[in-house]
Amino acid sequence: MSIITIKQIARDLGLSIATISKALRDGHDIGEETKKRVRAYALSVNYTPNPYASSLRKRKSKTIAVVLPEVTDSFFSKAINGIEVVAQMKGYHVLIYLSHESLLREQSILKDFQSGRVDGVLMSITTETECNSHIQELHARGIPIVFFDRVCNEIDTAKITTNDFESGYAVTSHLLESGCNKIGFLTISNCLPICMKRSAGYKKALIDHHMESKESDMILCSNNEEENYTLIKKILSQKKRPNGIIASVEKLSTTIYQVCKDIGLQIPNDIKVVCFSNQSTAAILNPSLTTVTQPAFEMGKTAAALLFKALEKTNLDLTKESVIIPSTLHIRESSVLAGISKTKNKLLQKEILIS
Amino acid sequence: MSIITIKQIARDLGLSIATISKALRDGHDIGEETKKRVRAYALSVNYTPNPYASSLRKRKSKTIAVVLPEVTDSFFSKAINGIEVVAQMKGYHVLIYLSHESLLREQSILKDFQSGRVDGVLMSITTETECNSHIQELHARGIPIVFFDRVCNEIDTAKITTNDFESGYAVTSHLLESGCNKIGFLTISNCLPICMKRSAGYKKALIDHHMESKESDMILCSNNEEENYTLIKKILSQKKRPNGIIASVEKLSTTIYQVCKDIGLQIPNDIKVVCFSNQSTAAILNPSLTTVTQPAFEMGKTAAALLFKALEKTNLDLTKESVIIPSTLHIRESSVLAGISKTKNKLLQKEILIS
Repeated sequence: MSIITIKQIARDLGLSIATISKALRDGHDIGEETKKRVRAYALSVNYTPNPYASSLRKRKSKTIAVVLPEVTDSFFSKAINGIEVVAQMKGYHVLIYLSHESLLREQSILKDFQSGRVDGVLMSITTETECNSHIQELHARGIPIVFFDRVCNEIDTAKITTNDFESGYAVTSHLLESGCNKIGFLTISNCLPICMKRSAGYKKALIDHHMESKESDMILCSNNEEENYTLIKKILSQKKRPNGIIASVEKLSTTIYQVCKDIGLQIPNDIKVVCFSNQSTAAILNPSLTTVTQPAFEMGKTAAALLFKALEKTNLDLTKESVIIPSTLHIRESSVLAGISKTKNKLLQKEILIS
Repeated sequence: MSIITIKQIARDLGLSIATISKALRDGHDIGEETKKRVRAYALSVNYTPNPYASSLRKRKSKTIAVVLPEVTDSFFSKAINGIEVVAQMKGYHVLIYLSHESLLREQSILKDFQSGRVDGVLMSITTETECNSHIQELHARGIPIVFFDRVCNEIDTAKITTNDFESGYAVTSHLLESGCNKIGFLTISNCLPICMKRSAGYKKALIDHHMESKESDMILCSNNEEENYTLIKKILSQKKRPNGIIASVEKLSTTIYQVCKDIGLQIPNDIKVVCFSNQSTAAILNPSLTTVTQPAFEMGKTAAALLFKALEKTNLDLTKESVIIPSTLHIRESSVLAGISKTKNKLLQKEILIS
């Protein structure tokens, strides 16, 4: 006789894997009728829990995984530091897996966890992660997952984020107040919740300032540096080019600066630039770069603390534990008013906690 | 009867763990007499290979580990990308472990590998790794190790490095030719081979240019950003301060720029700055930063390719496979002659492959 899996039961009963798993574990959000039906069927087909999954519940690997799209972005390297501080206190190893923005890799990584390699998972999804059955399946096995930064809304668990909508709103308002009247918004995804929230904040700020929000000002970049260079150069070389630009991803700032240098646009006189970025060099760029700085270290630390809480208290309801930590707007030279004195320019530079 | 381990045999015979392991595996660099003696003793005490080590030899985890001090440095994030390209082609997972410059953590990580979690290890050691018995022990178990960038000379295996001595020599010569006559050299370790080679190149260039090499110009920095800021500020505020500075680690460049800004030193007029760095923002800093750029991606790729070669050919002698890949000197504004025309200044900026 072949071994019956949760997946098989889900298929047979026409229910999701998550529902079956929760029903068998007496989950709080599954109806009594469904629970009865699932249990009766599991009994009838001689279902026994997966031995791997059982070994997982013993939490023996003393290891947690961090699944990230990349580490070149300083947000992620700082978040890792926050995670490791907590893990070290708990005597756990941290394994870092990079998905390199590939859904296929992310799926393969999560499959690897099913063998009991790790006790829990901290995760920031790829730009390609529109389908999430691989996360759903891991979640259904009872391995605690906490999302941070790039979350997957469809999975019922804790999400550690920053105020992305408010941040998008704040930088856009700042550029409008600095005199911009055509603002380009560079993004890397039309689906990632984090990108959608930032662009929604941008659009709302435009509306509130009685400005038109044009789809042509929303610019979708890729993972390829050269492609992005070509695209941004094309946009900034147009006759009706933007006089303000928001880069919603750190790595785009270098490309924007390069393009401006190459086509002779002066920042901030000809064009103002702001970027969502945690890079420490922002303050020493030419000109210094206005940034939305995410609380990267804090987000990593909070996500890890929650994961350990879930590992220690098996009845913890992670769905009720989401946290939003505010970002900071660092106004620097790249976005301040042009044609004013150096002293006044200095005065305009400041740090604002976004609320 | 207790189980006899390689460690026990080593102790009993007064030999190193590595020697015992190699003798039992018929290693090429162990004398016939020693081999005979070790084998006879192993037979007499009923030694059987460690079951973990046996399972390791089956190479079943389909996983390699990368042990790094940090990922904030862009050298490491780029090297990871090179490693992952190869690993993906081979269908392997890559686990990234961060030692955070702590020997204790590095030891704990390597201990974790003894359970057969990974098939092979790519490694860059911490600034604290003066004692290396933990690496020796893992090596003795037959788990292939390839070092890259920060190598451990005492372990007989492949080392993928760049021409650090020549790089130290080239940047120092460049600064001397740009008019500097007092050059400070910032380092993070007096023991790491990579730091020693760079500083040896620096000293040799001074001698060849008939300059005095003073110990007081060698400045040892730490992992603490604030401490480094205070130290660099103190040095650059002295009456007899350096008029040229070499940062042998990427992160120090931001601190140097900040200090110069804060105490009113103009780069390159008052002080010239060069840095060993792979950061993409070097070209857009104020002023753009002269760097020694390591072939990070290539080094990671080469190290991974060698590790897989060792995993596929068990009789491969890794000690004969070390590779040195040259770095590039990118001369930019931060180190060129002061007081010359913008056009001439531009002409002086160039890329040189260091030989």
